[in-house]
Amino acid sequence: MAKEKKVEQITDMEVDFAQWFTDVCIKAELVDYSDVKGLFIMRPYGYAIWENIQKILDGKFKATGHQNVAMPMLIPESLLQKEKDHVEGFAPECAWVTMGGSEELPERLCVRPTSETLFCQHWSHIVHSWRDLPCLYNQWCSVMRWEKTTRPFLRGREFLWQEGHTLHATEAEARKETLQMLEIYAETCEQELAMPVIRGNKTDKEKFAGAENTYTIECMMHDHKALQSGTSHYFGDGFARAFGIQYSDKDNQLQYVHQTSWGMSTRIIGAIIMVHGDDNGLVLPPKVAPIQLAIIPIAQHKPGVLDKANALYESLKTKFRVKLDDTDNSPGWKFSQYEMQGVPLRLEIGPKDIEQNQCVLVRRDTREKIFVSLDNLEGEIEKALQAVHDGLYERALKNLKEKTFTATTYEEFLDIAENKPGFIKAMWCGDSACEDKLKDATGGVKSRCIPFKEEHLSDVCVCCGKPAKHMVYWGRQY
Amino acid sequence: MAKEKKVEQITDMEVDFAQWFTDVCIKAELVDYSDVKGLFIMRPYGYAIWENIQKILDGKFKATGHQNVAMPMLIPESLLQKEKDHVEGFAPECAWVTMGGSEELPERLCVRPTSETLFCQHWSHIVHSWRDLPCLYNQWCSVMRWEKTTRPFLRGREFLWQEGHTLHATEAEARKETLQMLEIYAETCEQELAMPVIRGNKTDKEKFAGAENTYTIECMMHDHKALQSGTSHYFGDGFARAFGIQYSDKDNQLQYVHQTSWGMSTRIIGAIIMVHGDDNGLVLPPKVAPIQLAIIPIAQHKPGVLDKANALYESLKTKFRVKLDDTDNSPGWKFSQYEMQGVPLRLEIGPKDIEQNQCVLVRRDTREKIFVSLDNLEGEIEKALQAVHDGLYERALKNLKEKTFTATTYEEFLDIAENKPGFIKAMWCGDSACEDKLKDATGGVKSRCIPFKEEHLSDVCVCCGKPAKHMVYWGRQY
Repeated sequence: MAKEKKVEQITDMEVDFAQWFTDVCIKAELVDYSDVKGLFIMRPYGYAIWENIQKILDGKFKATGHQNVAMPMLIPESLLQKEKDHVEGFAPECAWVTMGGSEELPERLCVRPTSETLFCQHWSHIVHSWRDLPCLYNQWCSVMRWEKTTRPFLRGREFLWQEGHTLHATEAEARKETLQMLEIYAETCEQELAMPVIRGNKTDKEKFAGAENTYTIECMMHDHKALQSGTSHYFGDGFARAFGIQYSDKDNQLQYVHQTSWGMSTRIIGAIIMVHGDDNGLVLPPKVAPIQLAIIPIAQHKPGVLDKANALYESLKTKFRVKLDDTDNSPGWKFSQYEMQGVPLRLEIGPKDIEQNQCVLVRRDTREKIFVSLDNLEGEIEKALQAVHDGLYERALKNLKEKTFTATTYEEFLDIAENKPGFIKAMWCGDSACEDKLKDATGGVKSRCIPFKEEHLSDVCVCCGKPAKHMVYWGRQY
Repeated sequence: MAKEKKVEQITDMEVDFAQWFTDVCIKAELVDYSDVKGLFIMRPYGYAIWENIQKILDGKFKATGHQNVAMPMLIPESLLQKEKDHVEGFAPECAWVTMGGSEELPERLCVRPTSETLFCQHWSHIVHSWRDLPCLYNQWCSVMRWEKTTRPFLRGREFLWQEGHTLHATEAEARKETLQMLEIYAETCEQELAMPVIRGNKTDKEKFAGAENTYTIECMMHDHKALQSGTSHYFGDGFARAFGIQYSDKDNQLQYVHQTSWGMSTRIIGAIIMVHGDDNGLVLPPKVAPIQLAIIPIAQHKPGVLDKANALYESLKTKFRVKLDDTDNSPGWKFSQYEMQGVPLRLEIGPKDIEQNQCVLVRRDTREKIFVSLDNLEGEIEKALQAVHDGLYERALKNLKEKTFTATTYEEFLDIAENKPGFIKAMWCGDSACEDKLKDATGGVKSRCIPFKEEHLSDVCVCCGKPAKHMVYWGRQY
């Protein structure tokens, strides 16, 4: 028998969560490092997760009337500078193309960190009348932000994402769009990725460069830190004025358009890893798992076993994403390997099972073994996949609920921030000075969002004691 | 009634083919120009064609065992230089990133013109044993080549494409892959895009930088020039040696891998335009047309017309890509508009049709009107779409056959090159000096390929009179 590769160990989550995360990324074969710091390679298994997420989101975008486009990847510096807040936010982290072939360019071009300016310039050419509105566009692409500290999925100098950009005749319509797209992100997280989220409004300090409002979904990781998982921005007519995007309305009056943008990136895979993973590796939500079911023959050298495993594979492969592993590695090695890769279900079939017309399903999340008859296998697999999804969601929701604390005084806030990792709910006066003070005093706890569903916890700001305007979720972040 | 926009005229093909092409790109709303020369915006209608082509190709790639990945978009200069022929081919047209944020980079990074070097570097990390082979990878991305002359779809400084990259244990297996992928391109062109192609081998002079063999499909445009529509390269172990990609075989001996790459780009949309288009605008092959059928109500203010048009739309939309145009533009305007956009079929329905339980189908390619009963509408539409596909293919094949000439002497070659636009079949000795001489003497006629199916036209090279090695297709090119 050929020499068996060892399934390598990963660091325990409790020992070093950051190292555990990196280990999972590498050992589950999601990414590889390239020669350039912060530029990661998405390997087939990692990219397949993204493709599944893409398919879900793209379907939802098209069902709500959006069309895909492709904008250039380079933005002239002068174009980026047209909207003041926007350029301030992005210019410090742009990568600049300065040479084309052997010639220096007359104006340097940045690799897009986001494409608002490109969309606006294009729209200023093609939008003239109310008949041209709304423009409901999206693009799938990669963008570049030259960050100092980088980590796979969480912070790359290049990352894949989609960016939606829309134009509307009225503020009301644009705001409705902004909220609609946030809800699409939220339900994708909850229903497809098994991740509960908090929907809310960013404070002025935390909103997107150039936006009037930034809506966000915030998700709690296993280590109780927050990850911003999708955002949707309402821009008002700020970009429209900077780029001169006007339309004649039905009364033939020139009006500025109202604009939105919204994005979700491969960061969401970082969230999946950190919400669902465990000390055995990745745990994937069934709806986006590249392999939903791994078939492992037991004692596969015995007569009939491989034939039966093959027959099961053939009968299941049109219904589920299935892999049959008939390599000569041991079953134990295979169990570890597919656990590392987070495959939601494995199916074991051996001589005894065949005799009894049954097989064993093993859930990745609970390791529960389920003996099922081969007569109703499809139905049982469907049930088990749904059970994994529900189990993952419940576990994540429990984490979120148990690790969300309420602070009504400044001392209480500091105490929780120091001793109880998680989210803090607390009232806030609306002044960004209090956000700064809380962040400094706690070494990094920031406002996550003003949730759409606010609670009245007290009458005064937890920081300054002045009258409270909002309830805010606070937390440390990725 | 609101003021109707005019459907603008385009230049006649015979008057100025290049201007006709640009007019179609703009007026059919496929592209817009950006602020940077050579960087084009693919508008929703243009991008939707690409999405349909992507779906077809991606399905074929996956069915043959390929997996998608995402490599970084930047390549360090030192990495690009590892394979000598390759860097010579691409370095002169690279766009270079030299600044990250406000800091000069220690080494400049080029925006990928193609990704062989990135794949090789990654493989040198992950390939160890014969068990790791084959690696069958593909990526969908955009690449950058800093060209002097640029045109939408045909020559952009940035363009979208897919690039497949594979590793194999043996030369035989790698060559089989190279040919398999070329055949996928060829059948996609013929069966989906209605474009007949010539399959063949590039001469050494025309092959890809770093390849041992480049296979190509060549397509004849309406103006009788050639467009290289897809290529597939066999690299031997050249890159493997440059990057140190070795595996231990079953006898535990270290071996170099054999490598291929293959690509098709948005250039193919340029080919679709130039093969099928006419003086009324774009003509799209039905299988990739974003709108296969445009429903135009006639006398839509009359009772029952819009209701009927809507009912037809609802009943057809799950089966075909349909658009109902119920705007208040005139039917004549709508006819011109959907002709300009190359929609393969339009369906007219008016009060008289409704009375007679019929409607009118009009083919975009022939403008033939077909009166069909509403009782078997789906079947009739299917038949008509197939007829458009077949008609387009036959027309393109006729063009290819009629405009392919045979030359057996040098004088004949020059005469055809001067007076008969098209392809020339002629024998060749195998010496690139003859390719140079023919190109110079004709002002640009180059070897297109040595077809897989060679004919014996004479015993000697059409240029130098020495013994002939191959039959070659020659032509002017895009």
